Amino acid sequence: MRQKGKGQTLDFNLSKKGTSRRDLLKICENAVKYSVRTSHPYFRNQLYGGVDPYALAGTWLSEALNTNQYTFEVAPFFMTTERAILKKIREIIGWPDGRGDGIFAPGGSTGNMYGIVAARYNKFPESKVEGMFGLPRLTLFISQDAHYSSIKAAHWLGFGTKSVIAVPTDELGRMIPEELEKCKCGAVPFCVVATSGTTVLGAFDPLEAIAKICRANDIWLHVDACWGGSALLSKKHRHLMKGVENADSLIWNPHKMLGAPLQCSPFVIRHEGLLHKCNSASATYLFQQDKFYDVSYDTGDKSFQCGRKVDGFKLWTMWKARGDNGLEALVSNTFQCAEYVHELIKNRPGFKMVIPEVQCTNVCFWYIPECLRNLEETEEWWTKMEKVAPEIKRRMTVEGSLLIGYQPLKHKNLRNFFRLVLTCQPPLTTENMDFVVSEIDRLGRDMIL
Amino acid sequence: MRQKGKGQTLDFNLSKKGTSRRDLLKICENAVKYSVRTSHPYFRNQLYGGVDPYALAGTWLSEALNTNQYTFEVAPFFMTTERAILKKIREIIGWPDGRGDGIFAPGGSTGNMYGIVAARYNKFPESKVEGMFGLPRLTLFISQDAHYSSIKAAHWLGFGTKSVIAVPTDELGRMIPEELEKCKCGAVPFCVVATSGTTVLGAFDPLEAIAKICRANDIWLHVDACWGGSALLSKKHRHLMKGVENADSLIWNPHKMLGAPLQCSPFVIRHEGLLHKCNSASATYLFQQDKFYDVSYDTGDKSFQCGRKVDGFKLWTMWKARGDNGLEALVSNTFQCAEYVHELIKNRPGFKMVIPEVQCTNVCFWYIPECLRNLEETEEWWTKMEKVAPEIKRRMTVEGSLLIGYQPLKHKNLRNFFRLVLTCQPPLTTENMDFVVSEIDRLGRDMIL
Repeated sequence: MRQKGKGQTLDFNLSKKGTSRRDLLKICENAVKYSVRTSHPYFRNQLYGGVDPYALAGTWLSEALNTNQYTFEVAPFFMTTERAILKKIREIIGWPDGRGDGIFAPGGSTGNMYGIVAARYNKFPESKVEGMFGLPRLTLFISQDAHYSSIKAAHWLGFGTKSVIAVPTDELGRMIPEELEKCKCGAVPFCVVATSGTTVLGAFDPLEAIAKICRANDIWLHVDACWGGSALLSKKHRHLMKGVENADSLIWNPHKMLGAPLQCSPFVIRHEGLLHKCNSASATYLFQQDKFYDVSYDTGDKSFQCGRKVDGFKLWTMWKARGDNGLEALVSNTFQCAEYVHELIKNRPGFKMVIPEVQCTNVCFWYIPECLRNLEETEEWWTKMEKVAPEIKRRMTVEGSLLIGYQPLKHKNLRNFFRLVLTCQPPLTTENMDFVVSEIDRLGRDMIL
Repeated sequence: MRQKGKGQTLDFNLSKKGTSRRDLLKICENAVKYSVRTSHPYFRNQLYGGVDPYALAGTWLSEALNTNQYTFEVAPFFMTTERAILKKIREIIGWPDGRGDGIFAPGGSTGNMYGIVAARYNKFPESKVEGMFGLPRLTLFISQDAHYSSIKAAHWLGFGTKSVIAVPTDELGRMIPEELEKCKCGAVPFCVVATSGTTVLGAFDPLEAIAKICRANDIWLHVDACWGGSALLSKKHRHLMKGVENADSLIWNPHKMLGAPLQCSPFVIRHEGLLHKCNSASATYLFQQDKFYDVSYDTGDKSFQCGRKVDGFKLWTMWKARGDNGLEALVSNTFQCAEYVHELIKNRPGFKMVIPEVQCTNVCFWYIPECLRNLEETEEWWTKMEKVAPEIKRRMTVEGSLLIGYQPLKHKNLRNFFRLVLTCQPPLTTENMDFVVSEIDRLGRDMIL
């Protein structure tokens, strides 16, 4: 497997003989050279971006100290920081005295699985032993704009993708509570996965109204706050998640907006004791009960994993370094930049907003090349427009000046549009936003379609 | 949450204000000071240990370049190294031309889930959509000595722990093929999880005989080679996994014996195309089909995860640095040390072997304090013996001279015994083994029971 770089061939093959240190250094240089600069201010392609330097220091340290977050015995310092950070998150959610429980998951998709499995166990504890063979069809509710991970989870966890009901959303992409109320008939509803910050439009589902329906119908409320959860850190923006304290469980990815290195996904749950009851297998070789310390610090049996990477320490490090105030300032700045760029392009020729307001720090828009401006938006026009974003994307990738994602949104009948994603690292400025807008304009204006 | 160190109080709380750089540095120093030295030659407590320095360099680099292994677009270099390493592993297993597919999983437990889900999808593809509500009870076979992760997986994936049948093992802890043959009646058998290197005794299930039964009965054979898979790298020891090329899927943890930093878990599958069909959800915001490059390099949709940490690069780096030959030398040395220490304690007063031979690089034994030597092994004697390992463990932990795990093995009616685990990093010597044995003797000899 050989790959051509600029005038150079990289050898990815592994062979019998090793490689000299000089050549290894060259390989490392090439890894940097041919990797995408995700920490560049103009990498705005995904729901993650630059790395918080404090968190990076934390992760380098925990990688070097290489241990496993299942027992206090082998990770006393990291277990204690994990406890502290999970409690802090529960306090911020608003659960009394930070009570509840939690565990770090290897990513947001797994975090949603934690929530869905807990919901199933809570309603049908016998399913842990018996499985789902004897159960009636259970239904799981997400919104039409929700992330695909709940659908993948439904497959893995044995519900089948058919058990997932996508509740219609409003024009901003938020779940419509009245529609949820209508949907929950037929099969047995057991869980709603509400989203705080949808992947494309950045919508926040109305948690208060959804929680009310869940409570009235004995449905577990899991909140997928992977992307938008960072809003909780900002006094000005936490209203977006009003009612979050009613959630039964929640997953948040500080490796997204906040800039912790991947993976960093704290899962928290309101019900004390449930996580252990649900997931434990009591392996005697690992969780011996005759140890000489308080074995409640051995949290590994709450996990579906055995070996578990130290993912909490980097978040704890950056939080310790910056404090609540420092994190709040970063999040607020990112939201402000989103509002700034939204205002900037709203009235600019060649730009067309997908939704009329900023919700999270995603800004969605179409770019219209000059040849397509001021024309009627016919089917033919949209067919041409569909090709614009992929072509501008190709141009920006080749030039290396900027990287932004695009996608259609079929259930809303929206053709390929750009999604500009703003994250906290490196902290963005209004000048950065000016550049992004003018660069897209430069790359696409003369396009002939 | 405050924790007392030696004469010092550590503050784990997170507050409004940040922390000075000087204090942060102190915190980092404390993280090192109060962490277990897992890279110390006498940390022999778990199925992992020291860190391979090349792999650590690789992981530091990929952490700093922070990206996400779902699309080629954002991780071109890392996607290519992942392809190369997965192909290499399939070649070593013996699949023709290294054909097949694979993906890195966030740990071995998840790797077993990948195998079990693929097995289910292979037999009942409609279960992806329909779930398990309409299916007959499916049974999953493991051995009595298998890791608990398949039991946890059975819960999560909707089978229920009841669907797991633990096939009896022989005196060395290996699955007995004739017993498997007997067990597979009643419910619908769909998957055998065979173990290469069990957690406690280090047993290798006889893959050839098991594969024959699987083939004859249309059962998927998944191999949990998390611990023992490294034997494949050694010409002298790969016979332990004879027949592995018949496996349908396999998971291996180079973060265990080989010393890659956690997490590093390549999952491979013999059937081309199945992984994608099984797990894909075709999210249009991520896996656009109108990209300007070959989108078969976008492997993220084969995963049940969305965001996926770069876990392959560190393994690729160490393999590139050391070559097949270098890795083989490390693995062989570790096996040799296991054989050495086995011989050493076999006839030494106060030591009693649990099994008569070395299988993998776990060495299991009881230590008998002087007060219990040369006595009849009555129930009362064993009740006393049960307390020996926890007490020696306490002593070694407090002294900090050594760390070794212990456990009972209830299904074999074995009381608390030590499990000495040998790994490749740092490379062990016979002198290290001499120390381990004499240190246990020193710590435990005078115990009064």
